[in-house]
Amino acid sequence: MKARVIVTLKSGVLDPQGQAIEGSLKGLGFPGVANVRQGKVFDLNLEGTDESEARSRLTSMCDKLLANTVIENYTIEISN
Amino acid sequence: MKARVIVTLKSGVLDPQGQAIEGSLKGLGFPGVANVRQGKVFDLNLEGTDESEARSRLTSMCDKLLANTVIENYTIEISN
Repeated sequence: MKARVIVTLKSGVLDPQGQAIEGSLKGLGFPGVANVRQGKVFDLNLEGTDESEARSRLTSMCDKLLANTVIENYTIEISN
Repeated sequence: MKARVIVTLKSGVLDPQGQAIEGSLKGLGFPGVANVRQGKVFDLNLEGTDESEARSRLTSMCDKLLANTVIENYTIEISN
């Protein structure tokens, strides 16, 4: 099955990269843009067909490697 | 309104970062993982309430700055 993990910075965490992108967008002529935040997305294939088991494995992957849970949140989407 | 842009590498494009993550996951004891690809996500707020107009502005932002359309695809999600 296919899975997508989206990792985003927690709301209180400063995001200088997002701020730089926001500044660039304004410089390119997009004025009505605010609060730009950049995150990461991981697409992967998983063996097996048990969705709840896959979700638990993905949670463990996020906690161990894909996300820094001190400053980042993650969401897991699974599709068949 | 809020928007999320997800930028992923096109399928033929080599992703060494994804391969490194896949190797690390296997090293950490997650064997059934394959085809890991890393992308970027941008969350932003947009002024205005016209969704189709927002989508057209976001498309322009992606083409000009957020994505390299030679090697990357993007998807746009808008929520109110």
